[in-house]
Amino acid sequence: MSTTLPTSAVAAPAPGLRRHDAGVRGFASDNASGMHPDVLAALVAANGGHVGSYGGDPYTGALEAVLREHFGPDAESFPVLTGTGANVVALQALTQRWESVLVSSDAHVLLDEGGAPEHVAGTKLIPLPSPDGLLDPADLERAVEAAQSPMAAPVGALSLTQSTELGTCYSVEHLTQLCRTAHRLGLRVHVDGARLANAAASLGTGLGDITTAVGVDAVSLGGTKNGGAIAEVVVVTAPGAAPGVGRLRKQSLQLTSKARFVSAQLLALLEGDLWRRNAEHANACAARLAAGVRALEGARLTRPVQANGVFAELPTAVAARAAARVPFHVWDAHRAPGTVEVRWVCSFDTEAGDVDALLAVLGEELAASRGGA
Amino acid sequence: MSTTLPTSAVAAPAPGLRRHDAGVRGFASDNASGMHPDVLAALVAANGGHVGSYGGDPYTGALEAVLREHFGPDAESFPVLTGTGANVVALQALTQRWESVLVSSDAHVLLDEGGAPEHVAGTKLIPLPSPDGLLDPADLERAVEAAQSPMAAPVGALSLTQSTELGTCYSVEHLTQLCRTAHRLGLRVHVDGARLANAAASLGTGLGDITTAVGVDAVSLGGTKNGGAIAEVVVVTAPGAAPGVGRLRKQSLQLTSKARFVSAQLLALLEGDLWRRNAEHANACAARLAAGVRALEGARLTRPVQANGVFAELPTAVAARAAARVPFHVWDAHRAPGTVEVRWVCSFDTEAGDVDALLAVLGEELAASRGGA
Amino acid sequence: MSTTLPTSAVAAPAPGLRRHDAGVRGFASDNASGMHPDVLAALVAANGGHVGSYGGDPYTGALEAVLREHFGPDAESFPVLTGTGANVVALQALTQRWESVLVSSDAHVLLDEGGAPEHVAGTKLIPLPSPDGLLDPADLERAVEAAQSPMAAPVGALSLTQSTELGTCYSVEHLTQLCRTAHRLGLRVHVDGARLANAAASLGTGLGDITTAVGVDAVSLGGTKNGGAIAEVVVVTAPGAAPGVGRLRKQSLQLTSKARFVSAQLLALLEGDLWRRNAEHANACAARLAAGVRALEGARLTRPVQANGVFAELPTAVAARAAARVPFHVWDAHRAPGTVEVRWVCSFDTEAGDVDALLAVLGEELAASRGGA
Amino acid sequence: MSTTLPTSAVAAPAPGLRRHDAGVRGFASDNASGMHPDVLAALVAANGGHVGSYGGDPYTGALEAVLREHFGPDAESFPVLTGTGANVVALQALTQRWESVLVSSDAHVLLDEGGAPEHVAGTKLIPLPSPDGLLDPADLERAVEAAQSPMAAPVGALSLTQSTELGTCYSVEHLTQLCRTAHRLGLRVHVDGARLANAAASLGTGLGDITTAVGVDAVSLGGTKNGGAIAEVVVVTAPGAAPGVGRLRKQSLQLTSKARFVSAQLLALLEGDLWRRNAEHANACAARLAAGVRALEGARLTRPVQANGVFAELPTAVAARAAARVPFHVWDAHRAPGTVEVRWVCSFDTEAGDVDALLAVLGEELAASRGGA
Repeated sequence: MSTTLPTSAVAAPAPGLRRHDAGVRGFASDNASGMHPDVLAALVAANGGHVGSYGGDPYTGALEAVLREHFGPDAESFPVLTGTGANVVALQALTQRWESVLVSSDAHVLLDEGGAPEHVAGTKLIPLPSPDGLLDPADLERAVEAAQSPMAAPVGALSLTQSTELGTCYSVEHLTQLCRTAHRLGLRVHVDGARLANAAASLGTGLGDITTAVGVDAVSLGGTKNGGAIAEVVVVTAPGAAPGVGRLRKQSLQLTSKARFVSAQLLALLEGDLWRRNAEHANACAARLAAGVRALEGARLTRPVQANGVFAELPTAVAARAAARVPFHVWDAHRAPGTVEVRWVCSFDTEAGDVDALLAVLGEELAASRGGA
Repeated sequence: MSTTLPTSAVAAPAPGLRRHDAGVRGFASDNASGMHPDVLAALVAANGGHVGSYGGDPYTGALEAVLREHFGPDAESFPVLTGTGANVVALQALTQRWESVLVSSDAHVLLDEGGAPEHVAGTKLIPLPSPDGLLDPADLERAVEAAQSPMAAPVGALSLTQSTELGTCYSVEHLTQLCRTAHRLGLRVHVDGARLANAAASLGTGLGDITTAVGVDAVSLGGTKNGGAIAEVVVVTAPGAAPGVGRLRKQSLQLTSKARFVSAQLLALLEGDLWRRNAEHANACAARLAAGVRALEGARLTRPVQANGVFAELPTAVAARAAARVPFHVWDAHRAPGTVEVRWVCSFDTEAGDVDALLAVLGEELAASRGGA
Repeated sequence: MSTTLPTSAVAAPAPGLRRHDAGVRGFASDNASGMHPDVLAALVAANGGHVGSYGGDPYTGALEAVLREHFGPDAESFPVLTGTGANVVALQALTQRWESVLVSSDAHVLLDEGGAPEHVAGTKLIPLPSPDGLLDPADLERAVEAAQSPMAAPVGALSLTQSTELGTCYSVEHLTQLCRTAHRLGLRVHVDGARLANAAASLGTGLGDITTAVGVDAVSLGGTKNGGAIAEVVVVTAPGAAPGVGRLRKQSLQLTSKARFVSAQLLALLEGDLWRRNAEHANACAARLAAGVRALEGARLTRPVQANGVFAELPTAVAARAAARVPFHVWDAHRAPGTVEVRWVCSFDTEAGDVDALLAVLGEELAASRGGA
Repeated sequence: MSTTLPTSAVAAPAPGLRRHDAGVRGFASDNASGMHPDVLAALVAANGGHVGSYGGDPYTGALEAVLREHFGPDAESFPVLTGTGANVVALQALTQRWESVLVSSDAHVLLDEGGAPEHVAGTKLIPLPSPDGLLDPADLERAVEAAQSPMAAPVGALSLTQSTELGTCYSVEHLTQLCRTAHRLGLRVHVDGARLANAAASLGTGLGDITTAVGVDAVSLGGTKNGGAIAEVVVVTAPGAAPGVGRLRKQSLQLTSKARFVSAQLLALLEGDLWRRNAEHANACAARLAAGVRALEGARLTRPVQANGVFAELPTAVAARAAARVPFHVWDAHRAPGTVEVRWVCSFDTEAGDVDALLAVLGEELAASRGGA
């Protein structure tokens, strides 16, 4: 695992402008990090002069071509501003006004988007069970059947997350089964791919192999957590299934005027293999962390570690003391008495030393806890 | 008028990353330009390390303090991602679910936001007459009265644009009258300030002098057209009038995870006087252009030139040929036969030579037109 | 003009239940009246026993067959509960989420539906000029073109009202032109037919002759103002153009469980010719009233009288005193100084004597006004 | 239990108008029945002449007074058209745009309203566990806490159903606890009272005793299932908690022009004790049915029988054959293999003989099933 950050053409920041300690890193989220230097360099290059606004610029044009290399020659792409925005735009395009959407009971779109799908799209989300974040094709049929009642909102789409909110990945076979079942039932399939790069890196596939190739209709492809700053894009992999994305993007507040700056970030990640390198690095950090946690007495991994997130059960007091020393979040405060489930997320800029320092902190606090007990 | 761009700490772009000619500038819009170098420098400085996401970072905290210097000690601020997003979030906070909003018949929120206020907020917009983009306080009362019918959607707010879509500015007195009338009628007042800096520069006032001080309740303050890349912020100048902005921002797809990068741009513009310098410069370019157009035979200014936009009537063919040489837009294609109204917008990076070159092109095409006739 | 109400099988009301004077009638609106006795008789007949709910009853089935006789063999019908509900359901079915709708500047859906289209459907309405309530095909093209901007909400449908809010009727030729133009521009066509019966009676056509036959795609067909109590129905005359009405009806709060009672009312009106007799009667009363007004010194008809509404200009004080004696509404309080435009609406149960009494009141008040001047 | 229907002033239906067999009754739902004769008589009485529309009539005025006798002197009431409409209007008034609503996992508003709350109100519903349809106050706190995350939609209201979808009733103590907990957490409380009369009859209380008196803020009070045809009303029991209901009713398609006919139905039910007699009768029929089912070999009651619904487990084939003879619905087709849960609902017009006939059919089919096995 290399932890050397690449040399960049971007100069050192001007003195006085920096208001934070750039040497501090934690495990709170992969959105606590900033931009990869190559992404910043792309912003510098995209600056200057005048270009067409609202996507009529060479960076957005180049991005469309690059995304077709990843997602196939028919793919259409629409850069947007947030992951929630990508999800809400895509789900509107994939469904009729009166249709509902099946989601995982852990889904970001269900729990962490402030009610945006209901508010902006007017769409009912129907949660399905999802152990470790993964949906079971067998659950789709009953949910679709129940919603065929004239009193219900019929299901129009399935939305799944890859990698999942719980740090796991769907295999290609699993995805294929889900898409086949969904299509047989008349549903379109959406992937919330805020961390699609981490899944592809984990599975050793390309981005299209786990979307277009298995039958997915539209993807919210995230660049922000992959090393960008504000860099998301809706990729329609089956254009007939998702009309109107361009219009919905504007109407849903996701069209930026100076679009070149969003597209340039995504190009920096996706034109070469930076997306994969960043994801592999974050995943490797998570694996290193998981290995270390397995060796700690008093901690227990609670989910398979397949991407860049690590979940573990800790004594409540240990979690609190450790999080005060190295930032991370409690994921579930309502476990067995005296314990919580915590989440550590590794980022493109997490360093091996950061992982080792966290493990040392955990070891100390667990030891103190045992001594104090 | 200085046209020298400031020296910056940002290095030259890496070779191979630039896909456009940074020496080309036009008059299509102030969103065709990129970032002011100081804004880019601020992005560089804000990068690196981990900070709190979703606004829990030092840049967003510092921005709130800076905005209170501009808008008064009670002002609350919520960085967002687009001007349309700022308007839709602010209008939701200022109105009840069942209320409508009075707007200018030229308003961006009415004509150029893809139906977002209706789609996201469910809000009816009621257009009022607005010669040269300016609303008349005398029109408010009848509109409010008409909407008091139990069959109508009662009016909850007035939204005005400063500087207007037609390049004019409301005077302090005009604003004061509008706010007084609106408040007397029970309305809250919103300002679409995508170009508020240009208005303040034109009027020689501060930003708060034409908002907080005259009774405005909330502002969509634009940084993008002022030299930022993605830099907008909802400023609630009368907090009691606009509850829930933080929640509405998330629910309306306007909360970005790596918020430090939006706040840093706004800080670069607003902490010192860059916002004013950029606006004064763009306004001065527009004045230079307007003076030149007045001297052209066959062209006619159609609006007072009070900010950074210049509107003129040209023969249709002249407009088409000139726009093929220097980018700008036809504003109204349906004028007197054989003529169109065009719009030229100056930006923070417009140079005096750009203005003079445009004037030369117009002169040539007008002459050719006369010769050909 | 017969003013004899038909004998009915419905018994006299039980003493003590009646809380109003059933002998009082005015000209406020055709929704101030109650049910035609045959409609009430149909409710009596539809009562008793158990039938399928939500439309699975014999009355709703029979209504669909009757409506196909009127609107053609492909017509689909969906009974709903209010005229606003019919409009909002139909417009949602005729448009995509991101599309806007062209309407008359006098349209009920624009002015008198409390913002329901924006609130429930999220749809922007774009008003077009409409002298005497009638749209001009020549105005469609420019409106559609303007809304093709990527910043605008593209137009998906045209909604027109027949008979109009101003008591006029579109001719068959006028409708044909509007539909042809709309379809050429890619729009679907909706008719707000709250008073479609009055228009057909006025034009001497069937209901389908002014809808299906001229190219209309969906109709809000009103029974309430035609002699029903709660009796509206969305008729999809071009089923391919308006999918999902059944689902949208439920989702938009327009599906009643005991649907037999709505369908029975509509059957009473539409199975025979009661719809036409009621409309002809109301129209004839309006014509009688218009003839009388023409003879009054100091009153002036302001609109052609082609259906059951009469509009006139009166001195403000005369209007106020007359309305205190016979109920009617001021339509426009902002006319020439000292005058208002008033509206008188005739209903299925308006009697010739009611008209003559109103004329007498107007004559007296006008005379008193002249004497007093 | 009396099964004699009251004599009425309403005449026999005219021959030829009746399209159904008024002697057929089943157990499919309490909305398969028609109107109680006294309700029909009230419609007859309310007919004739002209009155103010949109609620400006003496019936609506009288209803408000009657509802204040039930729900307290501050209660405000707004007749509406459907139970779904009542729920969606009330929930909008009780919450801010950005708030979510806690509901039972069996709630009609969650499962059987076609996504209307999400579509019309843009509101996220958060389901809580509810054994036998009943919420546990202990579950509120965690749900509210989870939704306080800046990523979630904060909870603004609790909606409970009385009597529940599963035929049970909340006790006064249970309701008091729920309301206290909800208010302590800052929530408003809504009751879906489509069958509130059945609950009050079951508990031996008045309607206000289980709403206003225990702290409920607004009620969807159903008259349709209680013997009306189209007769629902939003009762705001704590006016300060639910502003704007009048406006929201119009905007949400629930304001009918000839409102006298809705109000007259509700008056017929609520002015005297018809509401209670109808509910007691239906409840008594359910109790008779439950007693009979308990005696059947092979059937098993699955829920406490506390109102007018009876739930039981039957062999799948028995359920199918019995439902072909007497209409009723399968409630849950996914129980233990070979069995389904069925629902029988008694109505105001269910007769003792209907119950006994159903029991006979069940007995026969169960016997045949045992014989065949």
